Amino acid sequence: METLPRTVELFYDVLSPYSWLGFEVLCRYKNIWNINLQLRPSFLAGVMKDSENKPPALLPRKAMYLQSDIRLLGQHFQVPFQFPKDFFSVILEKGSLLAMRFLTAVNLEHPEMLEKVSRELWMRVWSRDEDITELQSILAAAEKAGIPTEQAQGLLGKIATPKVKSQLRETTEAVCKYGAFGLPITVAHLDGQTHMLFGSDRMELLAHLLGEKWMGPVPPAVNARL
Amino acid sequence: METLPRTVELFYDVLSPYSWLGFEVLCRYKNIWNINLQLRPSFLAGVMKDSENKPPALLPRKAMYLQSDIRLLGQHFQVPFQFPKDFFSVILEKGSLLAMRFLTAVNLEHPEMLEKVSRELWMRVWSRDEDITELQSILAAAEKAGIPTEQAQGLLGKIATPKVKSQLRETTEAVCKYGAFGLPITVAHLDGQTHMLFGSDRMELLAHLLGEKWMGPVPPAVNARL
Repeated sequence: METLPRTVELFYDVLSPYSWLGFEVLCRYKNIWNINLQLRPSFLAGVMKDSENKPPALLPRKAMYLQSDIRLLGQHFQVPFQFPKDFFSVILEKGSLLAMRFLTAVNLEHPEMLEKVSRELWMRVWSRDEDITELQSILAAAEKAGIPTEQAQGLLGKIATPKVKSQLRETTEAVCKYGAFGLPITVAHLDGQTHMLFGSDRMELLAHLLGEKWMGPVPPAVNARL
Repeated sequence: METLPRTVELFYDVLSPYSWLGFEVLCRYKNIWNINLQLRPSFLAGVMKDSENKPPALLPRKAMYLQSDIRLLGQHFQVPFQFPKDFFSVILEKGSLLAMRFLTAVNLEHPEMLEKVSRELWMRVWSRDEDITELQSILAAAEKAGIPTEQAQGLLGKIATPKVKSQLRETTEAVCKYGAFGLPITVAHLDGQTHMLFGSDRMELLAHLLGEKWMGPVPPAVNARL
């Protein structure tokens, strides 16, 4: 008997490299596993503030480990990471508010484009060390994802509307209610139970909870396409 | 052509539940993968002090997540976790100094017993919620692991010797030099390169680095025995 697809939510921010890993894994598995993947653009700085957590990179040894961990995981997950040259300025100062508001607008108006636009923003900040805070930068990512210029400008025009701002706030509040102290957060809804998983390294556990098969971060069907 | 086994070091403390997960996975794979596993009893409080890191459980949301994460991972890894009732007293106040000195003495005098005694100490603190700070408790773990009472008492008599104390200090300093800010730490020595991996959730990445096959936290050969 076919069972209904289980809803799996991924809360993420494009500033977070581990969010990119979790995002790619779930996008690869969404048509392999019996799941209904819901992408939830969230605001990492809001989660950190609400949970009173501090960015791990503020501790020197964690910052050092982050670099080698991301490099090794990038090879293993086939995600083309390159560390931003001025990490602290890009990640801790400039932030992602406009980018995450833009993704929120995309999700409201053209949800079918959310995956591609999210990926293009990660490609900018975490692969090509390019800006994601200027309107031009966001426009470039949207166009690269295949949104026509005029439509992308229309979406950009909406990022300061109460609707978009309150939607991003609501999503961020929702992940905090699940107990988030960072991103990515995966929330699996199974048989009336809710499981909250933190980080990109619980995807094999997610497979176990779903009763699905884990075939590594690059499942064979995807590997053939890459 | 057979290649020489690669050395993999596991630095751990029995206070750390994630160390237990990493320990069981590596003990299960040590005869499946072409590795020479070196168990390195270390002192977690020393690592935290040296790296100026704070125990994650001090942040309320991390403490909450830890409980659900350990419960789910315990099921998935087939490790019989039970959260200590008075977590803060057991983990943050009482600590593990005597236990880790004892394991250091075991490693110096009867290294072939280290795996079993370590597991019995974890069974006490992280499965049966029993003390590991009193000499009687450590003696009970050693006996349960199969060390005759007299021999165990002899080992207990050595935990305050300069040799044992300085060995534990040296191991803890060594893992700090690898960049540790917590435990477990896995250090893989491959083709003249050293890879330091933090946590129990990098074992699939370790397999990738080793060119070995990852078959989940409970590889089939082990599952048949459990």
